[in-house]
Amino acid sequence: MEKNNKKITSRDVDFAKWYNDIISEADLVDYSSVKGSMIIRPYGYAIWESMVSVLDKMFKDTGHVNVQMPMFIPESLFNIEKDHVEGFAPEVAWVTRGGSEKLEERMLVRPTSEVLFCEHYKKIIKSYRDLPLLYNQWCTIVRWEKTTRPFLRSREILWQEGHTMHETEKEAREETLRMLNVYTDFQKKYLAIPVIPGRKTDKEKFAGAEETYTVEAMMYDGVALQNGTSHYFGQGFAKAFDIKFLNQKNLLENPYQTSWGVTTRMIGGLIMVHSDNLGLVLPPNIAPIKIGIIPIGDNKEVKNLILNLEKALTNANITYHTDNTDRSPGFKFAEAEVKGYPIRIEVGARDLKENKITLVRRDTLEKITSNTNIEDIIKEINNLLNLIQSNLYNKAEIRRNSMLYKAKDLKEFEKYSDKPGFILTSWCGTEECEESVKENYGLKSRCLPLDDETSDKPCTICQKKGKYKLYYGKQY
Amino acid sequence: MEKNNKKITSRDVDFAKWYNDIISEADLVDYSSVKGSMIIRPYGYAIWESMVSVLDKMFKDTGHVNVQMPMFIPESLFNIEKDHVEGFAPEVAWVTRGGSEKLEERMLVRPTSEVLFCEHYKKIIKSYRDLPLLYNQWCTIVRWEKTTRPFLRSREILWQEGHTMHETEKEAREETLRMLNVYTDFQKKYLAIPVIPGRKTDKEKFAGAEETYTVEAMMYDGVALQNGTSHYFGQGFAKAFDIKFLNQKNLLENPYQTSWGVTTRMIGGLIMVHSDNLGLVLPPNIAPIKIGIIPIGDNKEVKNLILNLEKALTNANITYHTDNTDRSPGFKFAEAEVKGYPIRIEVGARDLKENKITLVRRDTLEKITSNTNIEDIIKEINNLLNLIQSNLYNKAEIRRNSMLYKAKDLKEFEKYSDKPGFILTSWCGTEECEESVKENYGLKSRCLPLDDETSDKPCTICQKKGKYKLYYGKQY
Repeated sequence: MEKNNKKITSRDVDFAKWYNDIISEADLVDYSSVKGSMIIRPYGYAIWESMVSVLDKMFKDTGHVNVQMPMFIPESLFNIEKDHVEGFAPEVAWVTRGGSEKLEERMLVRPTSEVLFCEHYKKIIKSYRDLPLLYNQWCTIVRWEKTTRPFLRSREILWQEGHTMHETEKEAREETLRMLNVYTDFQKKYLAIPVIPGRKTDKEKFAGAEETYTVEAMMYDGVALQNGTSHYFGQGFAKAFDIKFLNQKNLLENPYQTSWGVTTRMIGGLIMVHSDNLGLVLPPNIAPIKIGIIPIGDNKEVKNLILNLEKALTNANITYHTDNTDRSPGFKFAEAEVKGYPIRIEVGARDLKENKITLVRRDTLEKITSNTNIEDIIKEINNLLNLIQSNLYNKAEIRRNSMLYKAKDLKEFEKYSDKPGFILTSWCGTEECEESVKENYGLKSRCLPLDDETSDKPCTICQKKGKYKLYYGKQY
Repeated sequence: MEKNNKKITSRDVDFAKWYNDIISEADLVDYSSVKGSMIIRPYGYAIWESMVSVLDKMFKDTGHVNVQMPMFIPESLFNIEKDHVEGFAPEVAWVTRGGSEKLEERMLVRPTSEVLFCEHYKKIIKSYRDLPLLYNQWCTIVRWEKTTRPFLRSREILWQEGHTMHETEKEAREETLRMLNVYTDFQKKYLAIPVIPGRKTDKEKFAGAEETYTVEAMMYDGVALQNGTSHYFGQGFAKAFDIKFLNQKNLLENPYQTSWGVTTRMIGGLIMVHSDNLGLVLPPNIAPIKIGIIPIGDNKEVKNLILNLEKALTNANITYHTDNTDRSPGFKFAEAEVKGYPIRIEVGARDLKENKITLVRRDTLEKITSNTNIEDIIKEINNLLNLIQSNLYNKAEIRRNSMLYKAKDLKEFEKYSDKPGFILTSWCGTEECEESVKENYGLKSRCLPLDDETSDKPCTICQKKGKYKLYYGKQY
């Protein structure tokens, strides 16, 4: 029988409730009188800090620098790019008073910062020598959502937004895909999530973009999570904001633009891909605490071994948490499971007499016995951390692949449309077919798979000439 | 004759203009249509990132963890603590609409987050076992200032706010001073600013605090900058928010609270203490780029030496920037001076023939010749970085001390009151004397010097019995 935690609903009984239970039991989030916003508690925030530190390094290694724009946008500035306004206006928060005075012009709290970057770029871009500009910003944004779910959909979101300007279309398109690849790599190598990178259909593009690329993750329940996007803007914003540079032929030209972002939503994805009925399961490469150490009994040998182990872990740069509370070992084991530490180490007097300690893998719950030589323990830990990381990826990929379907015609499509997962179709390229799938089956297009877009088979939906491959799926 | 940069006003001619010129020429800040807010440009933001990374480690080393609260505060929540509301209400931004709807209850953008932390603490604090809670938050806050100056006074401010809860008054008071010491140490060791730590008078306390401690820095022009504060709240907020815990005697009690914060204002302080008429001067321990490398001429030997030097700097974890643009060496030298790289290295073909390169200290403009052995260069760099760091501190301290006055009576006080700097007085402890100094001389009390508060001399102002030592000075 599968082990269970009484405070956590089974994910196979009620996935939504399971998700909320995990978040609450692992102390990731709390709620306040600020409706629709969440408090990210220390352990939840530590996961975000871990993501930020890896991504920030990846951005800097690809030549990007960080800046900080204001959080407010005057209404007139926001109104400059039409598509953009139409996309965002229904869901923004408005500041109308400052101190005791009504503002002459109301301002919105940024839902995204394209217009602020564009206003700045207009001032600082003069010649091709000023390009490329590779800027990124870590900040919070606000979107006035009606229904919210922690990490997945919230009125306030922590994110990063890259905004870059380039001399040529080619460079800007390369940047768009470079950053999509950074997201793909990050999510595969660190989050152990086998995302599908691809291009969005015109219907699903970002408001103001020429192309939107996405990394689509599939959750344990088969539902899609759009886990990061990268946009090619062409010269649209540059023209609207009248940004021009002297090119190498000494002619004035509008630069080519990109933007790309990921959010705290990735924490939701992390939970819904790997965690189980005992609590969080965190991949070692992103877990803020890699080892949970649990002393059993209060004896000198136990304390000494733990002290030596802690020193060695610190030297090896492996994070740990030792549970020195006066609660029972069983309670501590359950807590370590809820928190998803990749490895739990149990150090007990009886075991020490036999010169051994026990390591427990969070992903498989397998128990591994090690001798008490500290070097040997560290070796075993490093070995297990690697095994856990790759096992989590492989498990997620196998599960994901088991829910990927191919439909060659409407009959096949109907057969799969009720099942959890994604359906790969051939697509004629018309919005009619895409729209009819949404209306008739409640499924939204996910993406055209990257580097494998074209199809020579008939359109799955209308059987006319197919042009593209296209994934469909339910989404969070 | 002192060297000058034509684009920078002399600081002895117009200090305010000099400050703005430095900020603009060093590309620290830009302005936008968002009045009163600033854009922090990459080089300015890199200084903040450098401060954040050091401070965040200092906070974590003293047991603190980071969290993230919402940026909005419902009006009713804000209204719970009376003194607090009165202090902040005149300068907050109000969100009154979300999407297309008027909000039922308007919300303010946080000017500080005490009430959000308190609401959360009420939910999670139950017993003494839950204490202490040592939380910190990195975020932006908004205060609707009428007059703004970059870094010094802005509508939106980047900062950190620590909020902690303790079992006893003693522990909370210790925490208040511990964090004041962290700020003092940080500013001395990293920013090379010899701050005066001390206690604020009741008149100058934070709205809602029992005690406010401050680190007071003196700028080059003798004007004070309050460069960080740490507050002891006692049980005030806890009572207002009805936060209670079961103490070790099994009785319900209100916990004891602190809060403490520093902001991007420190960047303003950094500029106004160390920089000169050639541009920024950054202390090596906080400079995001420690070395500016300038090739002179386009020859192979120059390129090779620079490549080897860059590798060695990377290995030694010393940040650098190589200016490979096609501008003249003179232009590049001036730019390196404006940016305040602690050391500039000039690598020229003629020098290399004589087996030498030139290092220039930003603080003294002194030229040092080194041989071309990479190991020797790195040794010289490390040596110089240490010298520059301590020289900047010493210079700032000597200048600061030259503008510290002691006044034993009103006549002496009047004599010094027109001079730039701080005046140390003996104080009877009444608000009347403090107020009369403000009204008659335009000087505000700075602080009662830490660990040296008491005075047995007569009050400088009224000549009645003195109780405390108290600094006065003009402030930013």
